[in-house]
Amino acid sequence: MTEKQNVLREDVRLPAFVVRRSALDRNIADFQRFADERGVLLCPHAKTSMTPALFGRQLAAGCWGLTFASCAQLEVARRHGVRRVFYANELVGAADIRYVCGELRRDPEFDFYCLADSVPGVQLLAERVAAGDPGRPVNVLIEGGLPGGRCGVRDVGAAVEVAEAVRAAGPRLALAGVEGFEGLARNPDPARREADVRQFLGFLARIAAALDGRGLFGTGPVLLSAGGSALYDLVIEELTAVRLSRPHRVVLRSGCYVTLDWGLYAGLLDDLHRRSGSAEPTLEPALEVWTQVLSVPEPGLIILSAGRRDFGQDAGNPIALTHVRHGSAGRRSLRGAGWRMAAASDQHAHMTAPPGHGVQVGDLVALGPSHPCTTFDKWRAVHLVDDDYNVVETMPTYF
Amino acid sequence: MTEKQNVLREDVRLPAFVVRRSALDRNIADFQRFADERGVLLCPHAKTSMTPALFGRQLAAGCWGLTFASCAQLEVARRHGVRRVFYANELVGAADIRYVCGELRRDPEFDFYCLADSVPGVQLLAERVAAGDPGRPVNVLIEGGLPGGRCGVRDVGAAVEVAEAVRAAGPRLALAGVEGFEGLARNPDPARREADVRQFLGFLARIAAALDGRGLFGTGPVLLSAGGSALYDLVIEELTAVRLSRPHRVVLRSGCYVTLDWGLYAGLLDDLHRRSGSAEPTLEPALEVWTQVLSVPEPGLIILSAGRRDFGQDAGNPIALTHVRHGSAGRRSLRGAGWRMAAASDQHAHMTAPPGHGVQVGDLVALGPSHPCTTFDKWRAVHLVDDDYNVVETMPTYF
Repeated sequence: MTEKQNVLREDVRLPAFVVRRSALDRNIADFQRFADERGVLLCPHAKTSMTPALFGRQLAAGCWGLTFASCAQLEVARRHGVRRVFYANELVGAADIRYVCGELRRDPEFDFYCLADSVPGVQLLAERVAAGDPGRPVNVLIEGGLPGGRCGVRDVGAAVEVAEAVRAAGPRLALAGVEGFEGLARNPDPARREADVRQFLGFLARIAAALDGRGLFGTGPVLLSAGGSALYDLVIEELTAVRLSRPHRVVLRSGCYVTLDWGLYAGLLDDLHRRSGSAEPTLEPALEVWTQVLSVPEPGLIILSAGRRDFGQDAGNPIALTHVRHGSAGRRSLRGAGWRMAAASDQHAHMTAPPGHGVQVGDLVALGPSHPCTTFDKWRAVHLVDDDYNVVETMPTYF
Repeated sequence: MTEKQNVLREDVRLPAFVVRRSALDRNIADFQRFADERGVLLCPHAKTSMTPALFGRQLAAGCWGLTFASCAQLEVARRHGVRRVFYANELVGAADIRYVCGELRRDPEFDFYCLADSVPGVQLLAERVAAGDPGRPVNVLIEGGLPGGRCGVRDVGAAVEVAEAVRAAGPRLALAGVEGFEGLARNPDPARREADVRQFLGFLARIAAALDGRGLFGTGPVLLSAGGSALYDLVIEELTAVRLSRPHRVVLRSGCYVTLDWGLYAGLLDDLHRRSGSAEPTLEPALEVWTQVLSVPEPGLIILSAGRRDFGQDAGNPIALTHVRHGSAGRRSLRGAGWRMAAASDQHAHMTAPPGHGVQVGDLVALGPSHPCTTFDKWRAVHLVDDDYNVVETMPTYF
């Protein structure tokens, strides 16, 4: 038996991005059960981790497919055997469409869905699909958007025109459903935000009804898709309640459940629990950045070996989690110990700590990032660890 | 002859990160000449690009070595044949020191310099170097720091104590010089900032004089090193003027000259030209992010296929540079055309543009990032292009 590398023993280079396996496995199992019980198809956005080893765990737990937002991401998924991809974006680029068509032609089991929101976009897609010769239709969902927001039609009339263009582009294209991203409703007042999101989901439902009424959907169940990682309770409630002339399935794309975080989504999960009056899903933060004390240049100032090249700050600074004296394996919690990240450089975190912080040069300090998306994308490898911080797997990322 | 891939013809996937070869080559040659003429050793910080193909061009142009700030970066440099590395950081981690010692033992031509700022740090380094058995001393510079800043001793007395600890750790360690990073002086008033920087450089000079007076430096010329990408004129002026009992060399670490940018460093270069009353060095922005129009969902709103996963925003949003109608190669400048980045999502830029912007779904738009560091680190490959946007080389990055 080979001895495992241990993070606390400095067998691996620091700083190191670590995911705790016990928390990860619980999160993946619990969120899948949550989706299953509510009767929705889970197709999590996987751009957060871009870690095929995690894709494998999510798919093994039973998720319907995985969501991506660029063809560079799609190619990573395909190289790692992902069969069903929800491409939550308009498919426009010539090189992208060549790639998708080639994959559809090569692999009959590749199941692919993309978005469209304009007649010129559909015409360009159809023209490029014709050149790419996939051998079967490309599945398209009409994207609904918010005024002042991002992509997506702004009214039902436009949605009908785009859907008719898709129909006219048959058999190159097939209309599979309706999609939107409710997370773009950004009213800071929670009650107003909830109302805006319900209204937006109602708009998607009205689009679906209009297309259904005109017989524009292709064969198979109609797909209605939404769901970031903050408001998926509302998505499930509103979209499962839609009634069309034929069966539909709700495709939920929430992705941040895998590792959660120590700031943004942890807080949004509390909001969701409060709003829904339920403790489900039960998720816990699984990600940590382990750093080393490089310097204690002033009594209350500790310089750590990880900076904005190693963790995101877009949703607040990481918090200090744990201290380990170098050469020992004893962990001491730093939560509530008055540590604060005063600043971050590219490669350094500048921490302030109260007198008697008890930290020396060479000690290890774990940080809890506030946002998984902007932390994963800074690493080429993630160490999966057991509860004693033995490395059980080193998982490459592909951003 | 194989036909070259062309960015404007969509031969490569978009978004694409592009560096213009003509501008790059001029920048590299011009900055090297600037350093040579001023008699300083250029050892540019290469963490900005982490692109070995660029390291090769910088070294071929004559730079003394390359600077890195973490052992993960150092390992990339070593794997790509970089012989002289200035490690602008405290060397603390057990795994890092094992690696450095192994490289020193393996390759007699590996020339390595690192920093120290505390007696416990020096003792830990010496202990770990003894275990790592490099076969020759590890070169150490004393780091001077700014109050409230990052690493570095805060007074000359502390510097002497640390240098004495280095001497006591001979032959494991050898004292090679004094280092500081003047960029941490952040007074927003330019005149005050200049005064603060001159004072800090004077502090480094006083440390050097104190260590020189005590005979603490090892053999060879004393190295005095500073120099980010904003205030290197002051570094050159102050540090070349130092007089010690023996020869010294100034090691300038400025790194962003390679590509410059369209915001932060372009502005700082203007400041430098004004301050120094000279048009040298003459640098130009070489980096562009080419994106595609995915949607024009409202008359004055254009959604592009690149977002905060593709460019940095920490020093302001990218600017719109160029428009190319899809299927054509005619370039139209967007500078001064009233375009503005209203927001960015992970994968999208939300641009506002005045009526008559003339842009359609599928068109190409080039953006000019405001900061190279936080744009390079978002890409695994950089396309080097000629003036017609033919790809002459695709250069992998190793962040």
